Amino acid sequence: MMMGVELAFPKVVGKQVYGSLYECDEDVLKDTKRLEQIIKEAADIGNMNILDIKSWKIGEGVSVVAIILESHITIHTWPEYRFATVDVYSCGPHTSPLNAFRYIVEKLGAKRYTINEADRSSEF
Amino acid sequence: MMMGVELAFPKVVGKQVYGSLYECDEDVLKDTKRLEQIIKEAADIGNMNILDIKSWKIGEGVSVVAIILESHITIHTWPEYRFATVDVYSCGPHTSPLNAFRYIVEKLGAKRYTINEADRSSEF
Repeated sequence: MMMGVELAFPKVVGKQVYGSLYECDEDVLKDTKRLEQIIKEAADIGNMNILDIKSWKIGEGVSVVAIILESHITIHTWPEYRFATVDVYSCGPHTSPLNAFRYIVEKLGAKRYTINEADRSSEF
Repeated sequence: MMMGVELAFPKVVGKQVYGSLYECDEDVLKDTKRLEQIIKEAADIGNMNILDIKSWKIGEGVSVVAIILESHITIHTWPEYRFATVDVYSCGPHTSPLNAFRYIVEKLGAKRYTINEADRSSEF
């Protein structure tokens, strides 16, 4: 019999990368079509599978949600403050929410941003 | 001239309450219509204004997103594990993401859950 070590992995492996983006490109923050394109590209870069993208104009700003097979990506923008918040929440070790987040930061032209990570894995 | 203290509040006040729900009611986790109703009621309880609710069946599970004027609420479910994750992210001091979160926990019949808070306010 082989000696072995039993490794336990959670059944649902999830990670969320989120943050605040400052001094962004105001024109991009207003541009629904451009934001939808950016969120699509970010999902590709993070190796996620997009099911749907929806957006809503809220005043000057836009809220964009990508529902991905692995959970979701959201961007909320406040062009009047050149401010946006981004959440990339994805399940599965094949995905890279960090790469997707960084891509969005770059494309929104943020001069400064905060970044946080939350473990969204199950305990079992 | 009045003596005064200058108080500075962030321009965008946001708070996110999120967590993992365990040992939920499996039937509720599969039921798209029921989940849409729960997310709607949760938004009302949290004093948020719903713009739209969308849902996607993913295997046995469901992803539901409510876009609210104040940001978003999401529920992702894994009925096979009686597991769900919930995010309630809302802007504005008039909202209570905590109350909305607790309502969802109750309606999903979670026997156990984790709860986390993230400050999503702007620094300016």
